[in-house]
Amino acid sequence: MATKEEVAAFIAAEFTQTKCVIEAVGNMGATVAHAVGPDELRPGGTVSGPVMMTVADVALYVAIFGEIGIVPLAVTTNLSVNFLRKPPATSRIVGICKLIKLGKSLAVGEVSLYSDGMKEPVAHAVGTYSIPPRKAQEPR
Amino acid sequence: MATKEEVAAFIAAEFTQTKCVIEAVGNMGATVAHAVGPDELRPGGTVSGPVMMTVADVALYVAIFGEIGIVPLAVTTNLSVNFLRKPPATSRIVGICKLIKLGKSLAVGEVSLYSDGMKEPVAHAVGTYSIPPRKAQEPR
Amino acid sequence: MATKEEVAAFIAAEFTQTKCVIEAVGNMGATVAHAVGPDELRPGGTVSGPVMMTVADVALYVAIFGEIGIVPLAVTTNLSVNFLRKPPATSRIVGICKLIKLGKSLAVGEVSLYSDGMKEPVAHAVGTYSIPPRKAQEPR
Amino acid sequence: MATKEEVAAFIAAEFTQTKCVIEAVGNMGATVAHAVGPDELRPGGTVSGPVMMTVADVALYVAIFGEIGIVPLAVTTNLSVNFLRKPPATSRIVGICKLIKLGKSLAVGEVSLYSDGMKEPVAHAVGTYSIPPRKAQEPR
Repeated sequence: MATKEEVAAFIAAEFTQTKCVIEAVGNMGATVAHAVGPDELRPGGTVSGPVMMTVADVALYVAIFGEIGIVPLAVTTNLSVNFLRKPPATSRIVGICKLIKLGKSLAVGEVSLYSDGMKEPVAHAVGTYSIPPRKAQEPR
Repeated sequence: MATKEEVAAFIAAEFTQTKCVIEAVGNMGATVAHAVGPDELRPGGTVSGPVMMTVADVALYVAIFGEIGIVPLAVTTNLSVNFLRKPPATSRIVGICKLIKLGKSLAVGEVSLYSDGMKEPVAHAVGTYSIPPRKAQEPR
Repeated sequence: MATKEEVAAFIAAEFTQTKCVIEAVGNMGATVAHAVGPDELRPGGTVSGPVMMTVADVALYVAIFGEIGIVPLAVTTNLSVNFLRKPPATSRIVGICKLIKLGKSLAVGEVSLYSDGMKEPVAHAVGTYSIPPRKAQEPR
Repeated sequence: MATKEEVAAFIAAEFTQTKCVIEAVGNMGATVAHAVGPDELRPGGTVSGPVMMTVADVALYVAIFGEIGIVPLAVTTNLSVNFLRKPPATSRIVGICKLIKLGKSLAVGEVSLYSDGMKEPVAHAVGTYSIPPRKAQEPR
């Protein structure tokens, strides 16, 4: 198991370009937020799809770390996203992940994506991560 | 219908931050490339998932433009990606989109994603775009 | 809006072959069960994937009816299923659907699929239905 | 590797209820057909979604057998289907599968589903199978 602080430090060190902020980790889940500015917008004055996919992907990654510790080489094998509502250009995107399966080699979770302050989700994702066998993991 | 030059000019103007390069548009398809540098990498020395999802999403968007003209407000409703092989850190990602349905309000396409120079795809995506009714589209 | 009884009568009349039983409809959701016998099994002594996909698809269909009335021509446009655990051969499959978007022309919902009596889901599905415009619907 | 005849015999023995007919197996692919009669129809006079999902699922299963031999305990982990056009009530559904990855433990393939005689696909599926380690496989 990794704490929120350990996960946040890992993400800051290994994904130096990311704008994702780790808000919570644990209890088979995680919450990740992403600021929205001009770089995140697309025609229609709304947040671009890839920003939301990034938040979903990171939320799954760190939710797994909260359960089994930091496993950098865990990789996404499948991510499926449904875009539901147009997020306003003025609010952060917040992804709330809940793992629905945590096996030895595969983990599956769903992520509800919100525009901060809105009650209904703007998108919903389901993803699968492949967890490498212990010997293949980098020493940490 | 929009030409490759028209589409490239639109993307450059409206998505100023993107590193996506339009390589081909037309015949119910499109080819989009994305440079890979330190910003695109993740632990394991491979390209991060969101980079590949971005290429898939843009390739679908511009393939639609090649058929019906530039419709900026077309939006992704669903994108599902399978990650198949680890792309090396040293090559561009190239997405080749083929539309499999182009209806009045929905378009569906698949995208094979390659690491430039590799024969087998590194990822495969299928996505749906919602095309707004004519009156809702911005004049261009 | 349609009641559980109205929906069950419609399904019985229009899908005479189905083994799906409507257990609950309403509050943006539905519960559908499916008996498991020799016809539903596959090698390994477990329930075949298509049985679970069928339960998910029907649960989405009837959840929509619970909100907008019986619209027979609503059709699935996308269904994505993750299979999580091996259901035993001896228990019904129960699908619990929750709609996450109900628009005028598209509805999206997720379905957790259980083997009756197990606490953790055996599968999870997300699906989109296209709802035809009023004039295209059959009179009922 | 298993031949078309071996695969067809296995399916006939183990899935006695199925209406799926194996038409071709090999070259990283498979073709599977399914008759359409009253049991396969839904309101609107079209083929029900679960019939198409079943064809896709079986086509993936047998395409894998064509490459690695008959592995009954291979199981679907993910299946995502897009429904594109309304198949007529009068023609068989034919699924043409092409594997896009065949690893030791995971195989991924896509399936184009046709209404026999139509040129454009009625649906498109992408699925992942988990292949059990050799020792876990039943002797055959």
